Amino acid sequence: MAKEYGEVELFGLRGSPYAGRVQIALELKGVKYRYVEEDLRNKSDLLLKYNPIHKKVPVLVHNGKPLAESLVILEYIDEIWQNHPILPQHPYDRSLARFWSRFIDDKCLPAISKAAFTANQEEREKGTEESLHALQFLEDELKHKFFGGESIGLVDIAAGFIAFWLPAIQEAVGLKLLSSKNFPKLSKWSEEYTNHPVVKENLPQRERVVGFFKARYASIIAQN
Amino acid sequence: MAKEYGEVELFGLRGSPYAGRVQIALELKGVKYRYVEEDLRNKSDLLLKYNPIHKKVPVLVHNGKPLAESLVILEYIDEIWQNHPILPQHPYDRSLARFWSRFIDDKCLPAISKAAFTANQEEREKGTEESLHALQFLEDELKHKFFGGESIGLVDIAAGFIAFWLPAIQEAVGLKLLSSKNFPKLSKWSEEYTNHPVVKENLPQRERVVGFFKARYASIIAQN
Repeated sequence: MAKEYGEVELFGLRGSPYAGRVQIALELKGVKYRYVEEDLRNKSDLLLKYNPIHKKVPVLVHNGKPLAESLVILEYIDEIWQNHPILPQHPYDRSLARFWSRFIDDKCLPAISKAAFTANQEEREKGTEESLHALQFLEDELKHKFFGGESIGLVDIAAGFIAFWLPAIQEAVGLKLLSSKNFPKLSKWSEEYTNHPVVKENLPQRERVVGFFKARYASIIAQN
Repeated sequence: MAKEYGEVELFGLRGSPYAGRVQIALELKGVKYRYVEEDLRNKSDLLLKYNPIHKKVPVLVHNGKPLAESLVILEYIDEIWQNHPILPQHPYDRSLARFWSRFIDDKCLPAISKAAFTANQEEREKGTEESLHALQFLEDELKHKFFGGESIGLVDIAAGFIAFWLPAIQEAVGLKLLSSKNFPKLSKWSEEYTNHPVVKENLPQRERVVGFFKARYASIIAQN
């Protein structure tokens, strides 16, 4: 397949939930690609050339043409490699998938970050409230095994942060947002998603991620 | 056309650049729709029912099914009504259009808002710097009459804020970000875009928009 569709390179960072999204989509579709690990304290010239605007991973390079922004890349991958579709077929369902994946990036992730990594107690409480409010919408939206139905789709991949990184954050900073008690469907989905063989194979080491968040939390507390 | 594709309703707000995007896309494609004007100080039950998450315009309702978020709606419209396509045909170009329209919403608009509507002088200067930096990327990206080539596409519609609302903001608050001197291509594009017959017909009254921004500015200054 790689030959047929040309050369694929992914600039990523182990532990990054955004780069992880792209990796999972490529693996689900069986696309062969070269993985380039970036060092965020010393970004490569290629990364800066390919993504001069955001200067961030992930960047996908397909036949020499670069693309940035994980959700944009996911749609591209789905248009080029059409096996195991991650977007639904019908335009309305496709739009809803786009809506929910943007909701995760625009509402859930900033709220979780505020709840976990703000020194100001009042701000943290506000972040917690906003997180619970946002997660409730996702809980209500879950009607099947996955957001994508019986198989993993765009929203599942976007929500991977909630399945894997959020529990690691909770452990690292002693926060409780997602539990089987308050969000039973979302918790069950988290388990299903992280245990999917392709996802499981491509998740970073949990202890490392917890360690990373512990260090981040400690540095925020130390600065205040 | 309206009959063939069922009933279309748009919940908007005169003067809203986001609702304006959807209106322009529908008009470009000649879609017949019912326009429902919202009052943001007294949102209708229907708006809250259709967009319980963001509680904002625009909402497009097609055959009873609601969709929110202007960029999501634009893609939906392009998938349902395929005449006068607003997204390019090739997947890579489609992805770039998605990238740039997100860039406008995620980088340009917040920077402009910070430059124009922040009381703190230092923050305003930071916003101005960020705005100029972001607009430069758009200036460099303009290679044809429109971002979409010879006809209006997704990025043009998304950038409508810069063509029409930004000059109104500049007038209202006495700010100079976009001028033919510092961004000649973007300035020429602004003129082309706002003079396109379909766009022109659907822009709000300039004095009203200027008045709105003047009042907003005054209230921010008064609070500080």
